[in-house]
Amino acid sequence: MENIKQYVQENKERFLNELIDLLKIPSVSADSAYAQDVIDTANAVKSSLEKAGCDFVELCETPGYPIVYGEKIIDPSLPTVLVYGHYDVQPADPIELWTSPPFEPVIKPTEIHPEGAIFARGACDDKGQMYMHVKAFEYMIANNCLPCNVKFMIEGEEEVGSKSLGWFVERNQEKLANDVILISDTGMISNQQPSITTGLRGLSYVEVEVTGPNRDLHSGLYGGAVANPINVLTKMIASLHDENNHITIPGFYDKVEELSAEERAQMAQRPFNQDNYNKALDIAEEFGEKGYTTNERNSIRPTLDVNGIWGGYTGEGAKTVIASKAYAKISMRLVPNQNWEEITELFQKHFESIAPKAVKVLVKPHHGGQGYVTPIDSVGYQAAAKAYTETFGVAPIPVRSGGSIPIVALFEQELKSKTIMMGFGLDSDAIHSPNEHFGVFNYLKGIETIPLFYKYFAEMNK
Amino acid sequence: MENIKQYVQENKERFLNELIDLLKIPSVSADSAYAQDVIDTANAVKSSLEKAGCDFVELCETPGYPIVYGEKIIDPSLPTVLVYGHYDVQPADPIELWTSPPFEPVIKPTEIHPEGAIFARGACDDKGQMYMHVKAFEYMIANNCLPCNVKFMIEGEEEVGSKSLGWFVERNQEKLANDVILISDTGMISNQQPSITTGLRGLSYVEVEVTGPNRDLHSGLYGGAVANPINVLTKMIASLHDENNHITIPGFYDKVEELSAEERAQMAQRPFNQDNYNKALDIAEEFGEKGYTTNERNSIRPTLDVNGIWGGYTGEGAKTVIASKAYAKISMRLVPNQNWEEITELFQKHFESIAPKAVKVLVKPHHGGQGYVTPIDSVGYQAAAKAYTETFGVAPIPVRSGGSIPIVALFEQELKSKTIMMGFGLDSDAIHSPNEHFGVFNYLKGIETIPLFYKYFAEMNK
Repeated sequence: MENIKQYVQENKERFLNELIDLLKIPSVSADSAYAQDVIDTANAVKSSLEKAGCDFVELCETPGYPIVYGEKIIDPSLPTVLVYGHYDVQPADPIELWTSPPFEPVIKPTEIHPEGAIFARGACDDKGQMYMHVKAFEYMIANNCLPCNVKFMIEGEEEVGSKSLGWFVERNQEKLANDVILISDTGMISNQQPSITTGLRGLSYVEVEVTGPNRDLHSGLYGGAVANPINVLTKMIASLHDENNHITIPGFYDKVEELSAEERAQMAQRPFNQDNYNKALDIAEEFGEKGYTTNERNSIRPTLDVNGIWGGYTGEGAKTVIASKAYAKISMRLVPNQNWEEITELFQKHFESIAPKAVKVLVKPHHGGQGYVTPIDSVGYQAAAKAYTETFGVAPIPVRSGGSIPIVALFEQELKSKTIMMGFGLDSDAIHSPNEHFGVFNYLKGIETIPLFYKYFAEMNK
Repeated sequence: MENIKQYVQENKERFLNELIDLLKIPSVSADSAYAQDVIDTANAVKSSLEKAGCDFVELCETPGYPIVYGEKIIDPSLPTVLVYGHYDVQPADPIELWTSPPFEPVIKPTEIHPEGAIFARGACDDKGQMYMHVKAFEYMIANNCLPCNVKFMIEGEEEVGSKSLGWFVERNQEKLANDVILISDTGMISNQQPSITTGLRGLSYVEVEVTGPNRDLHSGLYGGAVANPINVLTKMIASLHDENNHITIPGFYDKVEELSAEERAQMAQRPFNQDNYNKALDIAEEFGEKGYTTNERNSIRPTLDVNGIWGGYTGEGAKTVIASKAYAKISMRLVPNQNWEEITELFQKHFESIAPKAVKVLVKPHHGGQGYVTPIDSVGYQAAAKAYTETFGVAPIPVRSGGSIPIVALFEQELKSKTIMMGFGLDSDAIHSPNEHFGVFNYLKGIETIPLFYKYFAEMNK
């Protein structure tokens, strides 16, 4: 595979343009207004796999959006790699904060990406990282050096909880049989210091609705005499953290693993500068659970964050009204051993229990997933580490991520295989935010590194 | 004025149709998208005053929306009544909760209004109640029985703080000189038991903005390690009330008048049924400041209510984001002696002081007004009481209202005259809410009662 560098250089423009075409389709799975665009994106991914050299590609129907499945089986006796990715994206709002339209990709240089970065919703999460695998596969086919069997499973509901994927995996264990699962949907420390994500947080996502009076009321005639659902909601949410920012839901921490002093010391090795972190976010000081560092708070500790809140009059000017209803979307990041369904139940029970009699409370569980840990002594991890070391010239650091890829735990349970998270994004890529981007360097480096994983994984399995 | 009943009956249909035409114009002063409609409404009011018989009518330019001024001076030696009202309306949202479009008025019977009520935004507050005065004036001109001079001052910014009105009144004290000010922008107890509002609460309306990180963040990668502005905002708002629902802003209660046991006992005479109140609002139990009854909480006690809150993702489905900013609109109802500018300052100072270092806080004062009390031994009150007694067959009860008409205090200060609040609306009219309506009975009863006020006011001033 000595000519991979050269192949990437020769096809660089085409690789970028193909990705840009994919990014132009607004495949927002959370908003049904984009349903057709999501379908169109599935078809675009399908034909890209056919062009790249799959023997067989299909759109698999599900209760939700279709899953793109493709495969190239060269020899049943060889190990099989299952590549997972997603073609759906987060909503683009707040749209007005984008410096260029989210679905009109442009390449602009940034401080971290002097050679340019692709700005578009989904550039990094996950169209860009998913498409690296399609192009790496194209290279191995074109140069007749594919050392394993390959299966692709690209879904369209990752950003809304991967409901249909679970349904699909449970029903297709044989079709999806593999020796290792490869995912690029995470990040690395920097372009100089690669890292491999070995841990993920779980997730429990709920929506709450507080109802006071049965209609909006004049705040003068009724103010002070009825429970204002917005005031009540703020009291209820505020009470979910104590003065040390511990979560107050009874039983919430029962199954949380406490890391040993040694493990925490290892984590602290990771290069990190709190001042730069604060400066990058323009915050005067960090904030979080007492007794833990920033990198512990966002990786090995569970959290509770309000992702959205609304109620009453939010338009221009003033309206003196007491709303009938107030709403919030709340997500909890969980650590390995915490069961998301159990946590969702604990939340629901507690939240209902703290509501004053004067209001009605409705808790709607949205979705969730378990946390996960990958052992660094596994063949898959070793092969990935060797690949990174070769292309970056420095060994990757294993890192616990604060993010969640709920289906990773599901894969292990249903398919009995480990997942290797070869991420090439950066924290600064602004995924889920306005101006999401993905470095051209990172995109091409990913295409260059992935075939080496196949090579070493095949060798180590001999 | 014995033929007023008959005149109203003969012109009933026309009176209703004229009001309906006025209600069709969406004069929402809070939303600049309706600017032209607000102007159109001003012109419609102007021509209605001309038709009714004013000698002179004009649109007075202001820094904001124009004020409609009209007058009929029959004899400088006679007393002068200044009629105040407003032609602007509250926003109609949430639009989906209206059973008929807010600006397509329809007359439908209700339990309380078997003879029908006009459903439309502004039907009661204040187009309907304001237009009663135009029609009552029309009657007195047509029947040549106008016993006083009349001046009309109808503004278009009441729902957004009457800023321009203050500006206008300060500059036109001579033009507006009067012996009494008449306003119908309040309610009465019931169609069987009229009441006259003798007290109003003041208002301080502010908007707050909490900024955390400088951009929206992925709640997995950053959750737990940065201050979430929504979580922080809920903590800050929650802390503004203690466990007894007392407001915690230092100095907030310093100037609040404590009513004597006797005054509170008088108030308690007002017919009121807590169970019916709760049933009408579909609430399991009332809620409010410890130590006070519902009718005290919504009239003689100050309040703090969130009128709107928003931040993060509020669309369909789920988005795992930590917002950069969170917002709330907060209003405080004040009682006589509390100075709204002083309270606004106390709020701002306190709210800024309780913000954690990890966020930035911005408090934007919107507008406000002082509370007010009318003495029931004044000529104006006595004349009004006599008029109600004649048309309703029962004497009106003096009532302190929880609402605010900020300019009433301003009138006293600038024009040195008392205001009589002859309200004909009902609490159940849903002003500021979806399905606002105004009883046909109430509308016509108002037109019938107002000329009697003029009659007795003139007599008592002889």
